[in-house]
Amino acid sequence: MNVKQPASALSSPRFCNMGTFMRMPRLDSAEGLDFAIAGAPFDTASSFRSGSRFGPAAIRSISAMMKPNNVILQVNIMDSLKGADLGDFNVTPGYIHPTYAAIEEGVSAICDKGAVPIILGGDHSITLAELRAVAKKHGKVALVHFDSHSDLCDEVFGQKYNHGTPFRRALEEGLIDPAHSIQIGMRGSLYDPDEHKMAAELGMELIPAHKVREMGFDALIKEILNRVGDTPCFLTFDIDFVDPAYAPGTGTPEVGGFTSYESLNLVRSIKDLNFVGFDIVEVLPAYDTAGETTAYLAANIVFEYLSILAAKKQAK
Amino acid sequence: MNVKQPASALSSPRFCNMGTFMRMPRLDSAEGLDFAIAGAPFDTASSFRSGSRFGPAAIRSISAMMKPNNVILQVNIMDSLKGADLGDFNVTPGYIHPTYAAIEEGVSAICDKGAVPIILGGDHSITLAELRAVAKKHGKVALVHFDSHSDLCDEVFGQKYNHGTPFRRALEEGLIDPAHSIQIGMRGSLYDPDEHKMAAELGMELIPAHKVREMGFDALIKEILNRVGDTPCFLTFDIDFVDPAYAPGTGTPEVGGFTSYESLNLVRSIKDLNFVGFDIVEVLPAYDTAGETTAYLAANIVFEYLSILAAKKQAK
Amino acid sequence: MNVKQPASALSSPRFCNMGTFMRMPRLDSAEGLDFAIAGAPFDTASSFRSGSRFGPAAIRSISAMMKPNNVILQVNIMDSLKGADLGDFNVTPGYIHPTYAAIEEGVSAICDKGAVPIILGGDHSITLAELRAVAKKHGKVALVHFDSHSDLCDEVFGQKYNHGTPFRRALEEGLIDPAHSIQIGMRGSLYDPDEHKMAAELGMELIPAHKVREMGFDALIKEILNRVGDTPCFLTFDIDFVDPAYAPGTGTPEVGGFTSYESLNLVRSIKDLNFVGFDIVEVLPAYDTAGETTAYLAANIVFEYLSILAAKKQAK
Amino acid sequence: MNVKQPASALSSPRFCNMGTFMRMPRLDSAEGLDFAIAGAPFDTASSFRSGSRFGPAAIRSISAMMKPNNVILQVNIMDSLKGADLGDFNVTPGYIHPTYAAIEEGVSAICDKGAVPIILGGDHSITLAELRAVAKKHGKVALVHFDSHSDLCDEVFGQKYNHGTPFRRALEEGLIDPAHSIQIGMRGSLYDPDEHKMAAELGMELIPAHKVREMGFDALIKEILNRVGDTPCFLTFDIDFVDPAYAPGTGTPEVGGFTSYESLNLVRSIKDLNFVGFDIVEVLPAYDTAGETTAYLAANIVFEYLSILAAKKQAK
Amino acid sequence: MNVKQPASALSSPRFCNMGTFMRMPRLDSAEGLDFAIAGAPFDTASSFRSGSRFGPAAIRSISAMMKPNNVILQVNIMDSLKGADLGDFNVTPGYIHPTYAAIEEGVSAICDKGAVPIILGGDHSITLAELRAVAKKHGKVALVHFDSHSDLCDEVFGQKYNHGTPFRRALEEGLIDPAHSIQIGMRGSLYDPDEHKMAAELGMELIPAHKVREMGFDALIKEILNRVGDTPCFLTFDIDFVDPAYAPGTGTPEVGGFTSYESLNLVRSIKDLNFVGFDIVEVLPAYDTAGETTAYLAANIVFEYLSILAAKKQAK
Amino acid sequence: MNVKQPASALSSPRFCNMGTFMRMPRLDSAEGLDFAIAGAPFDTASSFRSGSRFGPAAIRSISAMMKPNNVILQVNIMDSLKGADLGDFNVTPGYIHPTYAAIEEGVSAICDKGAVPIILGGDHSITLAELRAVAKKHGKVALVHFDSHSDLCDEVFGQKYNHGTPFRRALEEGLIDPAHSIQIGMRGSLYDPDEHKMAAELGMELIPAHKVREMGFDALIKEILNRVGDTPCFLTFDIDFVDPAYAPGTGTPEVGGFTSYESLNLVRSIKDLNFVGFDIVEVLPAYDTAGETTAYLAANIVFEYLSILAAKKQAK
Repeated sequence: MNVKQPASALSSPRFCNMGTFMRMPRLDSAEGLDFAIAGAPFDTASSFRSGSRFGPAAIRSISAMMKPNNVILQVNIMDSLKGADLGDFNVTPGYIHPTYAAIEEGVSAICDKGAVPIILGGDHSITLAELRAVAKKHGKVALVHFDSHSDLCDEVFGQKYNHGTPFRRALEEGLIDPAHSIQIGMRGSLYDPDEHKMAAELGMELIPAHKVREMGFDALIKEILNRVGDTPCFLTFDIDFVDPAYAPGTGTPEVGGFTSYESLNLVRSIKDLNFVGFDIVEVLPAYDTAGETTAYLAANIVFEYLSILAAKKQAK
Repeated sequence: MNVKQPASALSSPRFCNMGTFMRMPRLDSAEGLDFAIAGAPFDTASSFRSGSRFGPAAIRSISAMMKPNNVILQVNIMDSLKGADLGDFNVTPGYIHPTYAAIEEGVSAICDKGAVPIILGGDHSITLAELRAVAKKHGKVALVHFDSHSDLCDEVFGQKYNHGTPFRRALEEGLIDPAHSIQIGMRGSLYDPDEHKMAAELGMELIPAHKVREMGFDALIKEILNRVGDTPCFLTFDIDFVDPAYAPGTGTPEVGGFTSYESLNLVRSIKDLNFVGFDIVEVLPAYDTAGETTAYLAANIVFEYLSILAAKKQAK
Repeated sequence: MNVKQPASALSSPRFCNMGTFMRMPRLDSAEGLDFAIAGAPFDTASSFRSGSRFGPAAIRSISAMMKPNNVILQVNIMDSLKGADLGDFNVTPGYIHPTYAAIEEGVSAICDKGAVPIILGGDHSITLAELRAVAKKHGKVALVHFDSHSDLCDEVFGQKYNHGTPFRRALEEGLIDPAHSIQIGMRGSLYDPDEHKMAAELGMELIPAHKVREMGFDALIKEILNRVGDTPCFLTFDIDFVDPAYAPGTGTPEVGGFTSYESLNLVRSIKDLNFVGFDIVEVLPAYDTAGETTAYLAANIVFEYLSILAAKKQAK
Repeated sequence: MNVKQPASALSSPRFCNMGTFMRMPRLDSAEGLDFAIAGAPFDTASSFRSGSRFGPAAIRSISAMMKPNNVILQVNIMDSLKGADLGDFNVTPGYIHPTYAAIEEGVSAICDKGAVPIILGGDHSITLAELRAVAKKHGKVALVHFDSHSDLCDEVFGQKYNHGTPFRRALEEGLIDPAHSIQIGMRGSLYDPDEHKMAAELGMELIPAHKVREMGFDALIKEILNRVGDTPCFLTFDIDFVDPAYAPGTGTPEVGGFTSYESLNLVRSIKDLNFVGFDIVEVLPAYDTAGETTAYLAANIVFEYLSILAAKKQAK
Repeated sequence: MNVKQPASALSSPRFCNMGTFMRMPRLDSAEGLDFAIAGAPFDTASSFRSGSRFGPAAIRSISAMMKPNNVILQVNIMDSLKGADLGDFNVTPGYIHPTYAAIEEGVSAICDKGAVPIILGGDHSITLAELRAVAKKHGKVALVHFDSHSDLCDEVFGQKYNHGTPFRRALEEGLIDPAHSIQIGMRGSLYDPDEHKMAAELGMELIPAHKVREMGFDALIKEILNRVGDTPCFLTFDIDFVDPAYAPGTGTPEVGGFTSYESLNLVRSIKDLNFVGFDIVEVLPAYDTAGETTAYLAANIVFEYLSILAAKKQAK
Repeated sequence: MNVKQPASALSSPRFCNMGTFMRMPRLDSAEGLDFAIAGAPFDTASSFRSGSRFGPAAIRSISAMMKPNNVILQVNIMDSLKGADLGDFNVTPGYIHPTYAAIEEGVSAICDKGAVPIILGGDHSITLAELRAVAKKHGKVALVHFDSHSDLCDEVFGQKYNHGTPFRRALEEGLIDPAHSIQIGMRGSLYDPDEHKMAAELGMELIPAHKVREMGFDALIKEILNRVGDTPCFLTFDIDFVDPAYAPGTGTPEVGGFTSYESLNLVRSIKDLNFVGFDIVEVLPAYDTAGETTAYLAANIVFEYLSILAAKKQAK
């Protein structure tokens, strides 16, 4: 009999590979899958509160509450799709570049098999590495970005790589197509007097939270669909898009945000876009409620991602 | 002098009979009362998180914050009504059938005196026993059911009696009249692809959360009033009807729910129904905020029940 | 006068060198300043939960997350205004009258220098002392009062000075002009059957929460602006105006309240009033979320106060 | 039928009269009782963290876990003694002198009936009022004082009445006999360079924590017994005598303290003193563990008080 | 490709099968193993606080912090032993008898393969089912029982099966040999005036906590070794043996308990007994510290079990 | 030089005007000081839980509870010493090498002025940078290291710089003199079968926790004093030396540790060593108790450092 030795925490961090999403099978490869879930438990690039390294474990743990049918979209994600949880990428806590390499390699391996990657963060810095992999496969992608911050800083603390800079870097590296990309939900006090214009100068469209309230969700959805068109598209969802009343477990919350109903509905409403990848980032369990409300909302957002994929497949 | 010995925790659970609702008098009988509040601190039938056995104690404790006037309905519940807290039914933790017997007996004793029972749960399994008592007195009742789950499962873990099954059992036992009953607020992922239809097959009406958002509250209220008519009616309110932002202290929360304002308003808006009983269930203090927001909301829902009764009596 | 700019969190992490609001300079006098922030960490007059003495420290600590630009009002509070944190008034825990003397003296010292006082509470009793100072400088002021309670009781526990009585006392002392004053957001069960009328008898206007929902925010804002006119005006914001989902960290929360978005928007919308002072009270950190959501909302409300002042100055 | 109206929170604070100790009967008078438990939910005199007003409610709530037999002393407190919970004294939050009057009156009423008062605090200021009542009945009493602070300050914040001054006042008022009194467990950094000597100058004996460690518990117990002799004796136990690992829920904890085992054992070991009153103070639930460890320890200390009384009665 | 469907929460509770102990392999059979870890996430038989159903998940999650070498015993558990985590038994929340059947079957399957079962609870009722399986394999076993309660009640709430009764039942069913069994650490107030004698009447030896303090650990260890001798022995460890300062996350804590150092040392010191099974019960995560101190201590106790087995094997 | 005395909490409440250690003056330079306190809020090198970046702020906040006299050593730290809080070093979250440069520069600036640096961490990686500065001034120093881990790993996650490696690096860089250095308190499961020997091979002395228990504290103190002799000495205290019952707020706690009394006593007992620097590391507030027990213990450890310096100065 051959019993595998457990991973050493000297090489594999102790917050990696705890359970699976919705208690799905844990596989090592995306071969033959429609989607693959993986964790990027990395919080080294956080500017304020650290601890989102425990995000993937928390989302997986509470995802045991999820069931396979989406009544609104009328799909069963398990019947429609083949998928699995590939566990966590081999991040290096404290070191962003080796972590980026591990994430990029992992996401590429998923894309190369033709599966859609769904990544659980971790702080928002991880999305840069994901985009590197996705763009390698699909070329420049459209970015649909839900967040309370635009993450377009050039430098934070004098450093180029931080959770406040990924989309500036992604633009510079030619990973995203600004003309088809859109950022939604920005709010709160700022260092820059006008984020709108700054985003526009980079070729992006940025719709701050107060504009969303003014225009309404129907107009917003139309705007997103128009902007993105049929460009292959990556959806990145920072949980702080949602108001901290609904999602307190995050590192840089902003008051005046959206409800969980609005957020889930929004994701569901853009289901016809041509998604090639998704992530959900910045869940920080140490600041969550006792009942893990934030992690559970994140699990539901992932469930909407899966439902979108299932609806697409069913539609074929 | 005759000093009563304290209850032994070998026969009376230690989470029973702590304080009273709104510091009302603690009586042993509903004789001469308009309403009687009682607790059913039972959580054995919980499928996920247990601990709602502490719900009644938490609701009573925080209810010290309540005052007697309802400004919107223009009633003083204490001036208009005679009522008391009868303490907790003699539940048997770990055993559902003796607990059901105790609850049924207790609620019957209240109904028999002509008082309206208002029961503090406890998990949702308790409502079956309450309905047995209420139906014995009033015949089949209309059910008005606010919840994020329909609780119409046939079996959970291979068992017929669980907090996911009470209304299936109540239908089978002929306790509720499906043609005048309505379930509101269901949402979240499901095992069943279409709860609507399943409820409809059982003769019930089920309005999921997303339909409520579509139709609006005015239409919803009209629908409830039409459906129920003047059938004697039992209102059961699972606190997870409310979004976990407003009511985190519960066992199986569902994101995308209703606000506390919407919830209180909804209850108040159906005040003209012919209520013969009420409960509020699934408050689980161990997952509540430090300030007991969930328990306080539950206490306010009970206050609306009392206000409805006061308004009716005043109207006579 | 040379006021040091606070550190930018882009170069100095926000968990470094805390201690003042937005890490502003700590000065001993308001000489030459446009505004002065000061704390009144006093909770002796609380009727239910005590602990708001830690409110100022919590608001300051989390205010490290704030940045200087208000995108909606298009102002940079640091560029436009000269201001500082004067620390805390020399309160006497357990004794309201010496505390009132210290607050009055401190606020007077600010007003006398021509700066606008912005006071961090503390329970709502502190506002009486602030109004004494402000009225000494400006005469009777209009009160704009956001709260879930009217705080117009005559006595609580047989005492005249308590956090439920400040505005009754302020009226008696001739500090506020009831004809130009307005109270907004009252809700919840009450001892008095009709607060509206009671306030009206005192010459005040009181708009309870359910009326706000009925009339809508546009009408509300118009009403406030009409009522206050150009009378010198003091804005007092009890954090329990906001629903406990958004602001759980307070002593006497009321369910059925307003969202953080609505609250911030409301303050911003009355920016053209003639403000001579502000406070934010009843933040109670021991009941807040782990992420200090309530304190952060309070810091954002202060930020709107500062933005209003900056917009006014810029407009000149 | 005559249903009592609930207490108004305008006259009776909302944290009063929640449940009873060990679910004992709630009586209005100590007539015919051996002991009477009462709460003094007052925290206005706290110098640092407030919130011990919720101490009595927390101790009573968790006391449901207690059972009547003390195996070590071989007594059943219920069989041996007649006793009850008299509820809470009519404290006036925010005002120490009316509160002192209420406590003194309440404790006197107990003493006058020949029952032993056992008071649940509340901050340590309450003990002065208790001593006034006890001394009126018994003359100067010996004080046995377990605490991490000596509470012998002359003034705090320029005030004579505060939780740091009760024993200085009690000495001045001639309520305690310093020659037979003893203070045990003082530790931590101090304003006074030598508390020992200061206490000695007042005629008291003070044994700081490090001396207790040096001399050992056997010597300590002998010293207490010798010091007190057969003088009528009042035991006051500040929960911060115990280390915050064992009793985190308190307002001014001091590290380097005693274990729960040591503390309970110590109380039990001086059972032969001539006790005429007891209290347990400074339990502050908002800082306790989720499982209410501190309140439960306090309930166990009260149980030892009761066991001492039972052992005495049995011995007669 | 064959992707396994995730378990349905209608048949497998959602708190089952989350991760593995020390990230060991997850196997379905104990074939060829020296030990097998399994969970019994059942809390239906809890008399006070429920929630220990989440105990196995919490212990496994935090066990990621464990490493394979025991320096004191000089063994590497992974090098010396073959073992795995078999996941959770198929418990039926709310129903003790089907749960007992599942546990008994599962433990039997482990014993039958010659592996030593190490079971993670769950409330203490589970041990009865474990003993049924172990006794079927090994005959009557000696019980070594660390706990603050003797769990020898005949009935609780009128029921024979509860977490207060397992060892009474085990004696009646002939599963344990009282003459070689020993219970250690009992303390706190009791319904029975003398547990010692009651245990003795059943043929057991019971050493309460205060006797342990009197006799010292060396004498205690000697007494255990003498009592048990070389009888096949089952060690059951209720985490409430440990003081709540060290292990707050449990349902019926008792103050005056043992330290974590004493507890681990005690287990290690009886390593030469002839162990045929182990469990650790009553870890209740909802009452644990934020850092999961209790679950981590439980994981360390399991580590000592494994170290004992490794030391034995190495010694052969 | 005129250093302001901190406010006394007898006149200024301890929740006022927080921001520096013991509300000491905040200075920019150590010129003329005996000691300088500074923060190194860096947690990027944490292997498990991150968040100790908030350690310095938490220690400073709760240090408002400290007073200037150490009764046991009979010193007043404020009368004897000139000192200040220099605020936080300019760390770069996410990047260890620029952080190391900032810490080294900051500590050097303190040492160069002849002041003793007392550094508040932050994770244990910061000590390497501190040692670089101290060794530059004083040459190789003796290390006195209290911790549950030896932090002598060569690599963690394939990286040389991590909070598990600082002392291996310090040895390689020639910053500490192993022959006069000593590590105390190591415990828990390990990757290395014998840490003792590994440390010995590096020339260090390592006394694990179980050896401390065997030898006793008197022998331990003697051993430390002998080992270190009069070599200039740096004391580094990882708060996880203390048992998590007493210090739960840390990232990699180990059960079976020391009490707060033992820990403070130990530091005090080696007061005659020739200390040239101190730190206290790994306080992680997000996992602390509500009452910040861990941060307060850390503040007390700093107070012992200051007392040692005061005693030395007084002795001159």
